[in-house]
Amino acid sequence: MSELRKDPVTGRWVIVSTDRKKRASEFERESVQIVADPLCPFCEGHEHMTPHELMATRSNGSGPNGPGWNVRVVPNQFPVLRVEGVLDRQGEGLFDKMSGIGAHEMIIESPRHDETLATMSEAGMDAVLWAARERMRDLKQDHRFKSIIVFKNHGASAGASPVHSHTQLVALPIVPRDVRDELEGAEAHFLAKERCVYCDILRQETRDGVRLVAENAEMVALSPYASRFPFETWILPRRHQSHFEESWPHEYHALGRLIADVLRRMNRALESPPYNLLIHSAPVSDQASDHYHWHVEIIPKITKLAGFERATGCYVNPTSPEEASEVLRGVRL
Amino acid sequence: MSELRKDPVTGRWVIVSTDRKKRASEFERESVQIVADPLCPFCEGHEHMTPHELMATRSNGSGPNGPGWNVRVVPNQFPVLRVEGVLDRQGEGLFDKMSGIGAHEMIIESPRHDETLATMSEAGMDAVLWAARERMRDLKQDHRFKSIIVFKNHGASAGASPVHSHTQLVALPIVPRDVRDELEGAEAHFLAKERCVYCDILRQETRDGVRLVAENAEMVALSPYASRFPFETWILPRRHQSHFEESWPHEYHALGRLIADVLRRMNRALESPPYNLLIHSAPVSDQASDHYHWHVEIIPKITKLAGFERATGCYVNPTSPEEASEVLRGVRL
Repeated sequence: MSELRKDPVTGRWVIVSTDRKKRASEFERESVQIVADPLCPFCEGHEHMTPHELMATRSNGSGPNGPGWNVRVVPNQFPVLRVEGVLDRQGEGLFDKMSGIGAHEMIIESPRHDETLATMSEAGMDAVLWAARERMRDLKQDHRFKSIIVFKNHGASAGASPVHSHTQLVALPIVPRDVRDELEGAEAHFLAKERCVYCDILRQETRDGVRLVAENAEMVALSPYASRFPFETWILPRRHQSHFEESWPHEYHALGRLIADVLRRMNRALESPPYNLLIHSAPVSDQASDHYHWHVEIIPKITKLAGFERATGCYVNPTSPEEASEVLRGVRL
Repeated sequence: MSELRKDPVTGRWVIVSTDRKKRASEFERESVQIVADPLCPFCEGHEHMTPHELMATRSNGSGPNGPGWNVRVVPNQFPVLRVEGVLDRQGEGLFDKMSGIGAHEMIIESPRHDETLATMSEAGMDAVLWAARERMRDLKQDHRFKSIIVFKNHGASAGASPVHSHTQLVALPIVPRDVRDELEGAEAHFLAKERCVYCDILRQETRDGVRLVAENAEMVALSPYASRFPFETWILPRRHQSHFEESWPHEYHALGRLIADVLRRMNRALESPPYNLLIHSAPVSDQASDHYHWHVEIIPKITKLAGFERATGCYVNPTSPEEASEVLRGVRL
């Protein structure tokens, strides 16, 4: 038998198979291999192969655009949106468009080609998250930008083209639909109950425990009740906060520890799967709010989307979140 | 430079690259090969390998569940939802669920293993569309079902598991989010202008011609202004009608001709790409409406979704619809 489950934030229904018990080993998997590349533009010593850096953490007093860094942020060489220009809004008969103004940056997470978020040092992970925060705080000064999306594609079938571990950051002159859906859902819950829906989720899940994956003093990792994808995992801060970039240093550190923990569990249980990691945060153009709660989503790419999902936005998930969290909890690290 | 374009129905923004001019030949493509399979359960003579048929078109007076058919509809052997049982709605603390009641059927489009919608006879195509209509009209008698999704996955990377050409039909006890988004957008347009937004699109596109792909007396194929995917193509009936299953026989025939035409163009321009074909129709639980307009979407699967799309629901399309329609229009059949 399967169940229809409703996401408590967006109201989106998901079909969860609770009988098929598709085990981790049954998925067609592509293990991510980090292939060496002597021409990788993201490797230390190849700084001349990227656009000039926007920021870097450098421990040894080295100068910009040369070796000696831990994390380096550069503009994307083939940006989907560009910083230069005027935000021009136009109609074309029935249709509406605006010029492709935005920013598209790459956070190069390590000087080493073969390092990943699952293997790097605690200090390295801290520097990656701090770089995301700093770039968001810088870009939000530009009032053309309404939202900033921070996301990571790991492995070719999750959409990564450079192999060298990196996170991307796109600043947009709009608030995208899925972000708006979450905001509106969270706001509706708050209006009805005077409570943040994510705080409610945290309370119920930490009490029940059946969908918990791991936790530490500041952060909780869980399989969401209406998981769209097998082994989808969310990491939420225990402290209510709408904007990722407004968190405290010890929270970034705790987040980094839990990201590494979850990725190592996935690497063991699912044999180094491709994945997307997404930071969901309130639009930079919004004030701090009582109803939205930033969080991280980690989604292993082990199933294919097909026509049904395309036609409906309703996902069929062959692995129940209770089973996924049991598998991930059970991994011995 | 790129452009942000807004879908006039859903309000969803898309980033369209208008400068990169990624040509058809530049995509990483997987040409769909129909591999022979002596154990294919969908081939004529193998009727015992499927559940009992729900309907079939049989030209020679042959009996059910044996050879002699053109199109055959059977329940899916591994349904995502089941017909049997009571639609039970429950809460689990904060969360809501219902039992997985629905229907999941397979329309086997041809007795021949190597036939596709692009190659079959006109009569074969007519029979496929008629079978979809008949199954929808039958299933909508069951008042537990709110919407019926008809979709086709062609090729493994578009999600097809049986190779033998087939279309799927899923009846749901809910109206899925993306269907609701279209309905609400179309309704808002109608309330503002007293006109169907799809009729408006048809008027503008047939007048301008820049995004037209092909047309006949009843149907128009076009590249939508805010295409999410390269070479995404919509086919709309010229006559306003909210429900696919309420169309007239000569409209199904005209639709079939245009589907075959578009698929042949895609096969030539994109080397037999995997694709999804989706019938967008008003929920079966809704009355005929002035604001919604059924249509077909054909989406070749030649790009990968990555973290950005996952985080935002906002798509980056490397091929402008003007370029896509020019390429498809230019194919000599």
